[in-house]
Amino acid sequence: MAPMKVFGSAPFTNVARVLVCLEEIGAEYDLVDIDFHVKQHKAPEQLARNPFGQVPAFQDGDLLLFQSRAISRYVLRKYKTEEVNLLREGNLEESALVDVWLDVEALQFDPVMHSVFYQHRVVPVLGGTTDAKMVEVSIGKLKKVLDVYEAQLSKHRYLAGDLVSLADLSHFPETHYFMEMPHAAVFDSYPRVKAWLEDLMSRPAVKKVVKMMGQETH
Amino acid sequence: MAPMKVFGSAPFTNVARVLVCLEEIGAEYDLVDIDFHVKQHKAPEQLARNPFGQVPAFQDGDLLLFQSRAISRYVLRKYKTEEVNLLREGNLEESALVDVWLDVEALQFDPVMHSVFYQHRVVPVLGGTTDAKMVEVSIGKLKKVLDVYEAQLSKHRYLAGDLVSLADLSHFPETHYFMEMPHAAVFDSYPRVKAWLEDLMSRPAVKKVVKMMGQETH
Repeated sequence: MAPMKVFGSAPFTNVARVLVCLEEIGAEYDLVDIDFHVKQHKAPEQLARNPFGQVPAFQDGDLLLFQSRAISRYVLRKYKTEEVNLLREGNLEESALVDVWLDVEALQFDPVMHSVFYQHRVVPVLGGTTDAKMVEVSIGKLKKVLDVYEAQLSKHRYLAGDLVSLADLSHFPETHYFMEMPHAAVFDSYPRVKAWLEDLMSRPAVKKVVKMMGQETH
Repeated sequence: MAPMKVFGSAPFTNVARVLVCLEEIGAEYDLVDIDFHVKQHKAPEQLARNPFGQVPAFQDGDLLLFQSRAISRYVLRKYKTEEVNLLREGNLEESALVDVWLDVEALQFDPVMHSVFYQHRVVPVLGGTTDAKMVEVSIGKLKKVLDVYEAQLSKHRYLAGDLVSLADLSHFPETHYFMEMPHAAVFDSYPRVKAWLEDLMSRPAVKKVVKMMGQETH
């Protein structure tokens, strides 16, 4: 059977999220670059895979998927083992807590992180000026999220309990970029969050994807 | 065993999402009002259930959950039957497609719908003036999402395939309010989307929750 395919490149945080899941389970996969400079993301073949013309898209045989967290769930569900069960599938309570904290990541953490990234990294490239006020608002929101994380990580080693899950891993792509930006020191006030991030960043699968994120692509 | 408890009231769209799942499976549950006027959402007992001080929160025995879609997944997973399997659990491909379209709802549909709701319904209550420019931008984004939905619903009866799922139901609370606002006519250009919504709105569980949404609460 042909290996699974991921369409997109590693520097995109939503692609990196899927890649780390594939690396965690040790899956064989092909990474197919989508060249934004020649608008390949809006080409008919990519729109058939992802109707919003975004990355990633994903193929496994006849199945086409998009949305990075949905792809991640599929991969982790299909290839779960006793050792690698990052959705805590089979345990109703544990899997519910993974769902809770994955939704927190998607709906509360990621939007504020992305907003800062956009202002610092994208706006200047587009010829604009970083909106300091907007960054400040986002940092304020981020602190409220980190207050909750610090409390949660004082009770458990990971967000959804004492075992690592997709809810934790899903945080690394945006955080990786944030740590290279002017506001990285915000995390210094949250020692348990910092220790948790260092633990995540030390995982072989994360290290491999971080390396891929730093490589030249379109 | 004590019935499940939902903390929050039906007019909140995120509470309504959970309620419709409970009604679809015919569960017994208690709805416990959280009085925002006396800041009950920030009281220690509610923060213990939902550390962000938001609604809903949810309790089933010793298990406490928050985030409406995570609660919905838990309820539908725990009480799934041959007849009511709104996550398409047990089928790897079908459940992955439910995940895809639930993420589309959460990350692409809901934010633009909520932005319009906020401008038309919340800003005036706070003594401000609706930002017409911001509404226009949101409506533009909504149309792009509805273009994708119209195409998807020309291939399948529901978003994730030919069977109804949480991905569909999750749309009804924001849409219910939108249909009473100045831009409701946007949907008229999308006949398949309109037929899909009418189908959803005709479900007994949805009708029951819509009625609850219209009742007086704090």
